[in-house]
Amino acid sequence: MERFVGELLARAGELARSQGLPCQVVLGGSAARGTWLAGDHDIDIFLCVPEHRELEEAMAIGRQLVLEHEERYAEHPYVHASLGGFDLDIVPCFSISDPSHLRSAVDRTPFHTRYVAGRIRGLEDQVLLLKAFMKGIGVYGSELRTGGFSGYLTELLVLKYGSFEAVLEASASWRPGLVIDLENHGSAIHTQPLVVVDPVDPRRNVAAALTLDRFAQFIGAARQFMVAPHERFFFPAPAEPLKDGELVRALQARKTMIIVVEFRPPDLVEDIIYPQLQKAQASIRSLLDREGFSVLRSGGNVSGQWGWLLFELLVWELPGVKKHPGPPVWEGQHLDSFLQEDRLILSGPYIEEGRAVVEVLRKYRRPDDLLRDRLGSLSLGHHLSPSIRSSFVLYQGWEILSIQSQDFRLFLSRYLSLRAWPAAQD
Amino acid sequence: MERFVGELLARAGELARSQGLPCQVVLGGSAARGTWLAGDHDIDIFLCVPEHRELEEAMAIGRQLVLEHEERYAEHPYVHASLGGFDLDIVPCFSISDPSHLRSAVDRTPFHTRYVAGRIRGLEDQVLLLKAFMKGIGVYGSELRTGGFSGYLTELLVLKYGSFEAVLEASASWRPGLVIDLENHGSAIHTQPLVVVDPVDPRRNVAAALTLDRFAQFIGAARQFMVAPHERFFFPAPAEPLKDGELVRALQARKTMIIVVEFRPPDLVEDIIYPQLQKAQASIRSLLDREGFSVLRSGGNVSGQWGWLLFELLVWELPGVKKHPGPPVWEGQHLDSFLQEDRLILSGPYIEEGRAVVEVLRKYRRPDDLLRDRLGSLSLGHHLSPSIRSSFVLYQGWEILSIQSQDFRLFLSRYLSLRAWPAAQD
Repeated sequence: MERFVGELLARAGELARSQGLPCQVVLGGSAARGTWLAGDHDIDIFLCVPEHRELEEAMAIGRQLVLEHEERYAEHPYVHASLGGFDLDIVPCFSISDPSHLRSAVDRTPFHTRYVAGRIRGLEDQVLLLKAFMKGIGVYGSELRTGGFSGYLTELLVLKYGSFEAVLEASASWRPGLVIDLENHGSAIHTQPLVVVDPVDPRRNVAAALTLDRFAQFIGAARQFMVAPHERFFFPAPAEPLKDGELVRALQARKTMIIVVEFRPPDLVEDIIYPQLQKAQASIRSLLDREGFSVLRSGGNVSGQWGWLLFELLVWELPGVKKHPGPPVWEGQHLDSFLQEDRLILSGPYIEEGRAVVEVLRKYRRPDDLLRDRLGSLSLGHHLSPSIRSSFVLYQGWEILSIQSQDFRLFLSRYLSLRAWPAAQD
Repeated sequence: MERFVGELLARAGELARSQGLPCQVVLGGSAARGTWLAGDHDIDIFLCVPEHRELEEAMAIGRQLVLEHEERYAEHPYVHASLGGFDLDIVPCFSISDPSHLRSAVDRTPFHTRYVAGRIRGLEDQVLLLKAFMKGIGVYGSELRTGGFSGYLTELLVLKYGSFEAVLEASASWRPGLVIDLENHGSAIHTQPLVVVDPVDPRRNVAAALTLDRFAQFIGAARQFMVAPHERFFFPAPAEPLKDGELVRALQARKTMIIVVEFRPPDLVEDIIYPQLQKAQASIRSLLDREGFSVLRSGGNVSGQWGWLLFELLVWELPGVKKHPGPPVWEGQHLDSFLQEDRLILSGPYIEEGRAVVEVLRKYRRPDDLLRDRLGSLSLGHHLSPSIRSSFVLYQGWEILSIQSQDFRLFLSRYLSLRAWPAAQD
């Protein structure tokens, strides 16, 4: 890896010189800090140009550096390529003097590298252990799908506590609301569960992407590991697509009703589609719960051509009668409208907690009828809504056995064996 | 009624004189104020003795006044008898000069009579209309079972607004928190939905027994009546015990599961047993709901030898798996205990909103199993708990057809046809 990167950096420097562009070529991320986890494939190279030049000049160098590439867009365009088994990002940015006055978020990265590189010497292995542990339990990565710890965050934690084990031990007293401020210069109020003030930018929370559940998961896993350390925390058994027999046995034990909405997802990057998968799940769960079809748990997955939303129901058949609460009785106009609604009333109106209530015939006694009728009018995320509306297939109960996609079976396997940390040793 | 009462009052006076007891004999309640609703059977006679004498001396007169009687106890003993078709209460009390310095609650009644009698002249019919309306819709009576409007309260409302119709019209702008203070001398903060300051005792709320739901019911019924007045508001069709065929049709339309707990109630007055019936319902509903057996509505009734608690369920069969939420993960000791519990885990532990959660085998998949096992350990009211624990019978679904008691069928009929006001005219 080092040789490969060294050649790339040298060539980028040559290209810049030959074109008269004053350009610092900086290796970013873990590769530059000796905290590069084997099995990772991401290499980030930053081309930093002075503020009076154009980023486009650096893009031109990126394009020449790797001829077979694609152009991608975050805040600004960058060059992405697969080369020598690595995922290579060549990112133009501005050389700035103060990271609290950025032109763009990527301008900050060279400062991170500089801050960590000078301090992490001798602690690289500790960072690697922490990253591997987090990756093993599933809390490593700040992309939205994971909502976990970024590489930079793990480095700062090791700098703060001194070692992998010290971080694990410290986490026993972590609570949501914890603030870690290595430079004692924090200057903003954050509401996230963990606040790690960026040493190079006092207003920024390095842990902004970390969700409460991944924060809690790390604390819990650390506790389990300290009681009974085991390599499975670092190297969990890989999930296998669920076989028919395993699926049948799981359904027989759980005796729930699993409903799957299968659809054709739009072709979008994970950081855009994943929040929409979450939103779609929340909308549908809320509809099902509101109508009395109690949801145990749900899941969502997109994989190539197919997307699936899964809902596991505790209740999937309801009686003919439904309670329909109206307004507080003293709101006369609302009461009038409520009483004038056209419907078959089985009982009432009677009063409950000051409100008029009627019991009426239930429209949806089964969740599939409900979803077929109402899925189209739900808010399922900006890009997912049109995809799902245009066509979806519902599977329920044993019907899900007919979904043969190995990606679906892998998703199911992960859904059923969901764990915050490895099982205790037998 | 007047002749009958007149004779009683005269004889009580004679008895007191003959025994040297200085005693005011006062007719209480509506009979004394000309606001006595035909069909009512309650006559209250107060024997008011000076504060330096004993209530027991008045009790002695009460006993002699009606030889065939029973002694009952509220704050103090009193004599109760059924005589000439009336329910007669002869109540000893103290003659006091200031009703805000009572020896006992009944000492206040003569003051109420005096206050109303002097002001209600010419408005007696308006009071009678208001009482009859409230009785017709089911909000008349301050006993705990009804939680409605007392007779004194209806009189004060007519004094405040001037007529039956004016009270109904005024109620269109009533809201919980309304304060009515005829003498503008209220001196205490009350939290009840309606506060009517007692004209003879500024600290007392005459409407203290009125529940939010009966308050709301009156407001709603008044609104319906003003739109479409009809005598059914005053004279509702009497409920009839539900016949087999009607019960079958109701169950077929609702398709719910009705569970009935039948027990032998203790022999106690309604004002003691009714709150316990409510408490028992609340405890059992909460258990059922907590275990996932969603309750649509419940009811309770005691009638002679038998008591029934009724629960109408939307859900009465649940899957094998159950979600079992644990402590927040950062509470390490609690987490340890939670993880060490002995049980078969189907999924998890995983994290939800910072908490460890496991999915385990459900113990109670049907509500009857749950109730048979757990009813005995619930808090069902001080006197009801031992009664129900000592023996109960569970009926569910079609089994309730086998309960032949006409009292039960009447209770069922009222449960199914529960209405806050009469149905609109066809």
